[in-house]
Amino acid sequence: MGGPADYAVIGKRTTRTDAVAKVTGEARYATDVYLPKMLWARVLRSPHAHARIVSIDTAKARRLPGVKAVLTAQDVPDARYGALVLDMGIFARDKVRYIGEAVAAVAAQDEETAAAAVKLIEVEYDPLPAVFDPLQAMQPGAPVLHENLKGYTTLFERTARAMSGNVNYQADIARGDVAAGFAESDHVFEDTYTVQKQHPSYMEPNSTVADVDADGRLVLYNTTQRPHINQAIVSALLGIPISRIRVVPCHVGGGFGGKNRTLTEPAAAALALKTRRPVRLTFSHEEEFTSATTRHAALIRLRTGVKRDGTLVASEISLYYDCGAYAPTPNAVWLGAISSTGPYRIPHVRVEAFSVYTNKMMGGAFRGYGVPQSNFARESQMDRIARELGIDPIELRLKNCIGAGERLHTGQRLHSARVRETLLRAREMVGWQGAQLGPNRALGVACGMFACGGFATSAIVRMNMDGTATVATGAMDMGQGLRTVMGQIAAETLGLEAADVTVVIGDTDLTPFDVGIFGDRGTHTAGQAVKLAAEDAREQLLASASVALGVAPGELLLGGKRVFARGAPERGLRYSDLLGGGQYKRGGPVIGKASINLTEEPFDPVLVRGAASKMFSTHTFATHIAEVEVDRATGAVKVLKVTAVHDCGTVINPDGLKGQIIGGLTSGLGYALYEDVVIESGQVMNPSFLECRPPAALDVPPVEFDTVEEFDSRGPFGAKGVGNVSVINVAPAVANAVEHAVGARVTSLPITPDKIVRALRAAEG
Amino acid sequence: MGGPADYAVIGKRTTRTDAVAKVTGEARYATDVYLPKMLWARVLRSPHAHARIVSIDTAKARRLPGVKAVLTAQDVPDARYGALVLDMGIFARDKVRYIGEAVAAVAAQDEETAAAAVKLIEVEYDPLPAVFDPLQAMQPGAPVLHENLKGYTTLFERTARAMSGNVNYQADIARGDVAAGFAESDHVFEDTYTVQKQHPSYMEPNSTVADVDADGRLVLYNTTQRPHINQAIVSALLGIPISRIRVVPCHVGGGFGGKNRTLTEPAAAALALKTRRPVRLTFSHEEEFTSATTRHAALIRLRTGVKRDGTLVASEISLYYDCGAYAPTPNAVWLGAISSTGPYRIPHVRVEAFSVYTNKMMGGAFRGYGVPQSNFARESQMDRIARELGIDPIELRLKNCIGAGERLHTGQRLHSARVRETLLRAREMVGWQGAQLGPNRALGVACGMFACGGFATSAIVRMNMDGTATVATGAMDMGQGLRTVMGQIAAETLGLEAADVTVVIGDTDLTPFDVGIFGDRGTHTAGQAVKLAAEDAREQLLASASVALGVAPGELLLGGKRVFARGAPERGLRYSDLLGGGQYKRGGPVIGKASINLTEEPFDPVLVRGAASKMFSTHTFATHIAEVEVDRATGAVKVLKVTAVHDCGTVINPDGLKGQIIGGLTSGLGYALYEDVVIESGQVMNPSFLECRPPAALDVPPVEFDTVEEFDSRGPFGAKGVGNVSVINVAPAVANAVEHAVGARVTSLPITPDKIVRALRAAEG
Repeated sequence: MGGPADYAVIGKRTTRTDAVAKVTGEARYATDVYLPKMLWARVLRSPHAHARIVSIDTAKARRLPGVKAVLTAQDVPDARYGALVLDMGIFARDKVRYIGEAVAAVAAQDEETAAAAVKLIEVEYDPLPAVFDPLQAMQPGAPVLHENLKGYTTLFERTARAMSGNVNYQADIARGDVAAGFAESDHVFEDTYTVQKQHPSYMEPNSTVADVDADGRLVLYNTTQRPHINQAIVSALLGIPISRIRVVPCHVGGGFGGKNRTLTEPAAAALALKTRRPVRLTFSHEEEFTSATTRHAALIRLRTGVKRDGTLVASEISLYYDCGAYAPTPNAVWLGAISSTGPYRIPHVRVEAFSVYTNKMMGGAFRGYGVPQSNFARESQMDRIARELGIDPIELRLKNCIGAGERLHTGQRLHSARVRETLLRAREMVGWQGAQLGPNRALGVACGMFACGGFATSAIVRMNMDGTATVATGAMDMGQGLRTVMGQIAAETLGLEAADVTVVIGDTDLTPFDVGIFGDRGTHTAGQAVKLAAEDAREQLLASASVALGVAPGELLLGGKRVFARGAPERGLRYSDLLGGGQYKRGGPVIGKASINLTEEPFDPVLVRGAASKMFSTHTFATHIAEVEVDRATGAVKVLKVTAVHDCGTVINPDGLKGQIIGGLTSGLGYALYEDVVIESGQVMNPSFLECRPPAALDVPPVEFDTVEEFDSRGPFGAKGVGNVSVINVAPAVANAVEHAVGARVTSLPITPDKIVRALRAAEG
Repeated sequence: MGGPADYAVIGKRTTRTDAVAKVTGEARYATDVYLPKMLWARVLRSPHAHARIVSIDTAKARRLPGVKAVLTAQDVPDARYGALVLDMGIFARDKVRYIGEAVAAVAAQDEETAAAAVKLIEVEYDPLPAVFDPLQAMQPGAPVLHENLKGYTTLFERTARAMSGNVNYQADIARGDVAAGFAESDHVFEDTYTVQKQHPSYMEPNSTVADVDADGRLVLYNTTQRPHINQAIVSALLGIPISRIRVVPCHVGGGFGGKNRTLTEPAAAALALKTRRPVRLTFSHEEEFTSATTRHAALIRLRTGVKRDGTLVASEISLYYDCGAYAPTPNAVWLGAISSTGPYRIPHVRVEAFSVYTNKMMGGAFRGYGVPQSNFARESQMDRIARELGIDPIELRLKNCIGAGERLHTGQRLHSARVRETLLRAREMVGWQGAQLGPNRALGVACGMFACGGFATSAIVRMNMDGTATVATGAMDMGQGLRTVMGQIAAETLGLEAADVTVVIGDTDLTPFDVGIFGDRGTHTAGQAVKLAAEDAREQLLASASVALGVAPGELLLGGKRVFARGAPERGLRYSDLLGGGQYKRGGPVIGKASINLTEEPFDPVLVRGAASKMFSTHTFATHIAEVEVDRATGAVKVLKVTAVHDCGTVINPDGLKGQIIGGLTSGLGYALYEDVVIESGQVMNPSFLECRPPAALDVPPVEFDTVEEFDSRGPFGAKGVGNVSVINVAPAVANAVEHAVGARVTSLPITPDKIVRALRAAEG
């Protein structure tokens, strides 16, 4: 396979397909959709963390002039949805399980009437004891959120077997003999880390306009990362065939995993079906902070055995992820579990990971997807080990880092893994002479690994009569630039320029199935389907040209929208002649398609007892080095620079890559230092960007980045992903830098000034 | 292959997919599209039949407040479009060639301002001699409409060779030895027939709303029978890649061939690109009658040699079709030529057919597509032959009618041909005892043949996770019910019910290429692509089930959304288990596709020298018998009943078939008796439905119909078409019945009372 130098489009700078639309303000988001006769919906939410619903009286609300419909659980099918265990309905039924849970919804002629009607719904609750801490929730006698958990439908049989009490998902991974490993070890380190809830902080709230079209089909204009799964979930919740639902995603104003949900669609759809009018349901920003999804808060215990020379021998890992009242993505816990060794070779490993219900808003998908939690723990502990053994933190990591062809503790063999090279390049870039740079100023390093890509996707590539191409993919561009990358992939494959390719995305009527954009599967997995579909089209083009030119397909080359004989470029045909004529004269239209599932290989059941025993397609790696300065008096941390080196396979769009990395780092920085969704007795105390603030542009430090390009055989042109792995190292790198700077080790995120001051006092104490 | 009795969905009554939308008024037509900030366009049209444009001054129009753009030929690329010869630009350039030709267009804030601005455009013309009759136009020294005809681009090289003077297309077909044939004949009949222009009379005018979307792509909401060809034509005329144009056809309020044009799209698009605002261009009804398309007026000469016993021996056929100032579909002349023998076996044939420019509005595609003209002549003459030889008209036809496996004069072998059975069944249905029924009351019979299907098309069938299916086809439903039929075809193939299938049509972003709906290719050709794509999906489904069940694919059956083992129905899997799980667990999504071109076989070049030497896929046949009563005093004709028997292959949707047949007969009835676009010196004198009236509901006589079902190997489940063949027999059947009733032979359409009275007076001498 050729390297980047051989490519005409791949790895070259190109204009983002959505650039003009976004800078001119013409890009249409779901909140920009206004349909004639549209109604406005509002949701009544639970004020209780845990309570039985005794009665709901909607009569007064219904009587309010301008109110067109009021729905509760009684008015919709008793169906539930979820990723592994189907636990959540459209509205609370019999019980509420967190403050902010949807109890009823109103559609009215305007927003004010809808809001007034919500206040007229009378609900009688019988409060129940609540539980807010996952470890407490796992104790015998703790309040149980889902009494009928065992009766819920699960996607995998083994998921059901692992569920019990408030544990909705459990993963166990075992490799080697942990007891023997600890016995062999010269030192055993045991630490506990805690991490907070973090909101994805997309600027655009969740929003759906639901409409019943002239053919009686349900059409949903929404903001989502997974239109085809939305379609299937709405189908299941409302009992409508998938073919009778069309999801039309608009531009996405940020998703970061948080739009891998189906939050506004079902209620908006139910109200539209009831009223036969378009219904708009848009979350308020307060609802985003109380009733959407955050990163899982978690507690991580690591017990790690090490040889005197720093060789990692054994690790016993316990992960307790707080998923809140429902479990939209327990898979994130699985990701945390499989990444919890870090990118290191550890012969003896035992992981137990739990997704636990508590009476809080939901924890779920968010950039990093379960890994920022466990990687903060692993990489913090790595620095402790380095310090206590007197080994340079980078040397310790180099000594243990895993390579291509080796197997993870899950049994999965790594296709490509250049973590070693990321460490070496990052060390070189910062001119590493040790962590400390001066008084209160230091570097901190962290490595990370993310399981990248997989699951089912498909693509269709149609050649137009003038030789241009139209690509259809169900994979969403959620602002990460996937449309641009898809166009580059198809253009390179078909001998076209990027501008010759139009990529049609999202709309379920236009596009073939994709399972959703998460887990670094956009470029790597959905992009691979586009490449294969384009290759299918190319083969048809070559076969047709072969007949027309009398040259064997293998002796034909593509370029400049022409097919020509190798060594005789004048002996050729323009695509437009082949296709324009071809539509009439020879054979049918050229349509390429690909349908793949990069999650093929089953896990070794001896090693793994997890509820989602799935291999990911490949793995991405990164090393980040943070330079910080700490004010000893106030505990204020200033991040002066972040150096980031990624192994993301072949780079397809360099500008897009840079944007992704800076975005990921920024989110990681918020996680490290600022953000926390504070919940007291189930109540979110800071439900706004202002109070729970993500980093703003001025908080972003200078970033220096580089890549160690690598050809990954499973991705298009060797590409992997970068969206998730760019998030997961910032917090441990900052924590490690802070310790090197002032000697304060903070083991709970975020690393706020008060924690540093307390740590400093304890150290001085 | 199984017969209709074996089918679960094919041949069964089903609800039309557009029924509810149309009866509730929710169906959206192009004229229902209103976009924010939309401008209104109006077109300035030529008042001259033929003139040089000396100058155009748009300054006053541009200065009118509210006017946003004024475009003439100078403002758009010098590009032309057409079907075989590319002769027509967006606006007249240098010359106008008919009264009503577009000279300039205005976009303004409202319709009134646009209309006012059009009047302010000052054009100086230098009138030229005009020619209105095709035979005159073929004379040496006649005014030439297109001086640079030889310089125009043509789709086929031979098209260019045949062009000369005002002849833009010429077809010559020769079989056997005509001179020898006439020498063998006992009688030679020589007749001339003339037919008028007929407007397609769709209720919805041509309309486009053009918009430039947020990505800078051109989006056209329009009414059309051929979205993909519209897209390509707008691309060529405006120099925009096809991939940068999206055509979104709305429900079509009637097309009948007349919407196989690209009339409003290019100017609306050019104005939208100029103003960067949505622009709506809707034809007035007057514009429809002066500047759209009619059926070609024509003069047909037949010289036919016959044996004493009625055996047809030789025929010399000359067709002169008046295509007006441009030639949007000279192919219709080709259809007339290849159908001009009627469905009869004639050993010696010579056809010469001409498409001739005149300074009139265009002649082009309209239901029947060139065949109503030549079939009126052939079937009128057949009755004359029968009368003069003293043979029963049905017996004469039975004696000569062609059968499956025989070759037409073009060399094409007939795949299926049950014209004989249609004659026998029609005779039986009317209880035929001869044509005359009583004083002034008689039956008239006519047979006909239509070349059905062909050209390129494609389809995509996606299986959804719940086992339902979504079909995409570029072929349009223009009210004929094609979506319904496509759904039945996919449902039957996939073991689903019709309601389980959603058919996505038209939108060029959603659908793969189809060349357009004309020539009975909807069900037969586009439907065949749907069937093949569904079979492709079915094979994938069976392969997946085969692995899951451990049963060979050949031993699996489909039904009730399950796959199960032959003979052991309990050993099976629901589609939803196969697919819902399959999306995650096994392989990629199920996507079937098919890409075909049913126009494969070239004509024998010895026999045929035509500009479009293409074989059609198959042929449809019909016999119609009209019962009429004629008022001798007034010449008024009352059609009492029409009996119609069709050989249309397997019937897929019985109700749809009935609708098609009644619609075709009604159009044929208008052609026979009422409709005429009267043109004097190039000016349409009756440009409205009121003045040039098509039959209304009360004019439609009782229709009795039947089919002689036949399995055609090239169509889906054996289906052929019925849209065109249902039109072509009415006029000759009525003309023949009129002669049998009162002895008046009318050889020019329409058969108006004055012509009958004149014929009666002539007969009375």
